[in-house]
Amino acid sequence: MASRARRRPGTLPFDGADARLAAAAWSRLTEPGDLAAGILRRELGDVAALDWLLHLETQPQPGNPPGWRTAGPPERSADGGTVVWASVVARWLPRLAVLDVRRELDTLHRCGGHLVTPEDDEWPARLHDLGDTTPPALWVRGRLSPRPRAVAVVGARAATPYGEHLAVAFGHGLGEAGVDVVSGGAYGIDAAAHRGALAADAPTWAFLAGGVDRLYPAGNTALLESVIATGAVLSEVPCGSAPMRSRFLQRNRLIAAAAGVVVVVEAAWRSGAINTASHAARLLRSVGAVPGPVTSMASAGCHRLLREHDAVCVTEVAEVLELLAPAGEHLPEQPELGGGLLDGLDPLARQLLDALPMRAAAPVASLARASGLSTSEVRSTLGHLELAGRAERHGTGWRRRRER
Amino acid sequence: MASRARRRPGTLPFDGADARLAAAAWSRLTEPGDLAAGILRRELGDVAALDWLLHLETQPQPGNPPGWRTAGPPERSADGGTVVWASVVARWLPRLAVLDVRRELDTLHRCGGHLVTPEDDEWPARLHDLGDTTPPALWVRGRLSPRPRAVAVVGARAATPYGEHLAVAFGHGLGEAGVDVVSGGAYGIDAAAHRGALAADAPTWAFLAGGVDRLYPAGNTALLESVIATGAVLSEVPCGSAPMRSRFLQRNRLIAAAAGVVVVVEAAWRSGAINTASHAARLLRSVGAVPGPVTSMASAGCHRLLREHDAVCVTEVAEVLELLAPAGEHLPEQPELGGGLLDGLDPLARQLLDALPMRAAAPVASLARASGLSTSEVRSTLGHLELAGRAERHGTGWRRRRER
Repeated sequence: MASRARRRPGTLPFDGADARLAAAAWSRLTEPGDLAAGILRRELGDVAALDWLLHLETQPQPGNPPGWRTAGPPERSADGGTVVWASVVARWLPRLAVLDVRRELDTLHRCGGHLVTPEDDEWPARLHDLGDTTPPALWVRGRLSPRPRAVAVVGARAATPYGEHLAVAFGHGLGEAGVDVVSGGAYGIDAAAHRGALAADAPTWAFLAGGVDRLYPAGNTALLESVIATGAVLSEVPCGSAPMRSRFLQRNRLIAAAAGVVVVVEAAWRSGAINTASHAARLLRSVGAVPGPVTSMASAGCHRLLREHDAVCVTEVAEVLELLAPAGEHLPEQPELGGGLLDGLDPLARQLLDALPMRAAAPVASLARASGLSTSEVRSTLGHLELAGRAERHGTGWRRRRER
Repeated sequence: MASRARRRPGTLPFDGADARLAAAAWSRLTEPGDLAAGILRRELGDVAALDWLLHLETQPQPGNPPGWRTAGPPERSADGGTVVWASVVARWLPRLAVLDVRRELDTLHRCGGHLVTPEDDEWPARLHDLGDTTPPALWVRGRLSPRPRAVAVVGARAATPYGEHLAVAFGHGLGEAGVDVVSGGAYGIDAAAHRGALAADAPTWAFLAGGVDRLYPAGNTALLESVIATGAVLSEVPCGSAPMRSRFLQRNRLIAAAAGVVVVVEAAWRSGAINTASHAARLLRSVGAVPGPVTSMASAGCHRLLREHDAVCVTEVAEVLELLAPAGEHLPEQPELGGGLLDGLDPLARQLLDALPMRAAAPVASLARASGLSTSEVRSTLGHLELAGRAERHGTGWRRRRER
């Protein structure tokens, strides 16, 4: 909370017509997920919206912006549109007074990062699904080259060895399958998912709740530097922003939006991962939940997702790919079923084989009574079983043929 | 497969007009789940159906029975009803030739059992949901006094300590809640569920695939004798019948039908418990599946039920009772959520509290920039936080109030 030089009202410390600087300015002026700002920017564009705001700074009872077509931002208002704008704009003006976005961009560039806006090729197209809460810009360290498929693997910070083992396995398997792994860079499940992807030499993305100049949490600095080397660490808030709780919740919406599927590996009953899953459901993404022991509190949130939120039970990477793929692709292989004694037999043959003695041979009439089949069914089925090497004649009767 | 004296065709070794003996005879003549026999018995009643069968024994090309209204039993037939009946009846005649149901009833009575037919008060009403595959009779050891609610707790024989622990807990909890526990008397999950109910002094039912004269599996004899003492061991096949594989599969339909809900605690990918769950789904019973570690093959079947069969994830008894109850009753209590720092605060207050410094106090203008709220929102929210004991004035600024 360093004190900053106040600008002269109605002016900017940079060329207000520079669209990239305007986008950066909006990401500084507003908190993540600010719907009113999103509507305003959609209507006017970043530059004109900023210009309008500068005009208001010197005339603080705003009417609707010029050319306004929307029914106003969705803030409650007792007496019409002007009051609404006044209360919304009042949240931006304290920051506008000390706006110094060049300094924040300098910090970003000094740590090797760059700004990405929705006009850039690097911009992850799926983020547009956020509509009017799409961030104005992303502050990125690393290279944002999204592949067509991405899965978010998220979960508890207080993970168990079971959960971390699975998160590594999912991160690794998805990375190997050519899927970008998206997570939040936190301790526990997030870190394990990133690690798994890195082990597969696959790009992974860590969305931070604070500025990317400060890798958070500090204990994951080395991990996040590896993420930057192969993928990206990114945030919608400028350098210097603290990772506050409300920003974590909004950060979760970015994780959900950037991925096609969200997988929750371990989560307590009340957990940030549940919040991410809720964002995913709202964005019509599939949510997978990995089950665990019901005796483990670290899995309680996953079981809650399965019970209450229509999450799909996922136990392996193939099942996650199935959620991601158009219907029919990537169907997981059924586990080897094991060649049981009765495999490949029709029901009558199974029933007769069950009734067939192992040693002393039995006549057809007795086999009919034991199996509940008619004598003619017994005779024809015995023929099939003999051909299949499952039954053999012995004297006047029949018995099972021993398997080798 | 002892050889038996052949009767004179067209006669019975007992008064064919005795409805109870006729029911017992039908349970000997047919294999469990015989749909054709069920339709015939529904149309004619047990006594007349048996009479018709005796008539056929001496004239083996049957037409439809007198007064027949149904379109015949659902067996495939190339050329009409007579061939159909001939092939169906041909399965019953080998057993009719050696029918000796009095001897089987004597065996039942000698081991303290008794026959229960659908006309008896003891008959479990839910079994009627089986329609034309409702068994003709139950061979019962113990007392069948069904309470209004019953839950089947089933699962793998090769259970893990985790699964057995949970099965005991579910059996015990359901028993204490006044719910009958239904299972199959097998090793592993079944036995643990029975044990749990017995520990709660609650009646439990074990449906066997073979005759109740032979308690199967032998290693569970002592357990099944305890079940007989407080509840019942029962079967639809007469004394002396072997527990064949096809009978296990049909026995599973009885377990599903006798219960209002089926809970699968542990099951391999391919398991009898999956079969029981399929029967339950067909009977419109809810199926609960208990999750477990995805690394445990003993839980693979439960996860399969969650993925493919619309089973509900259940982790505790209260969640099972919820499946059983009419909507709204027995909703499980939410786990204690734990009093977090931000509980009970509205979103603005949370956002401001996050931005409020711990030590050095900050002025309102700086709090507005940090939190993204307007200065007037900051002022009024600080008032609320002060009243709630979460914020305090210090000099010209504000800071968090330490919690005791």
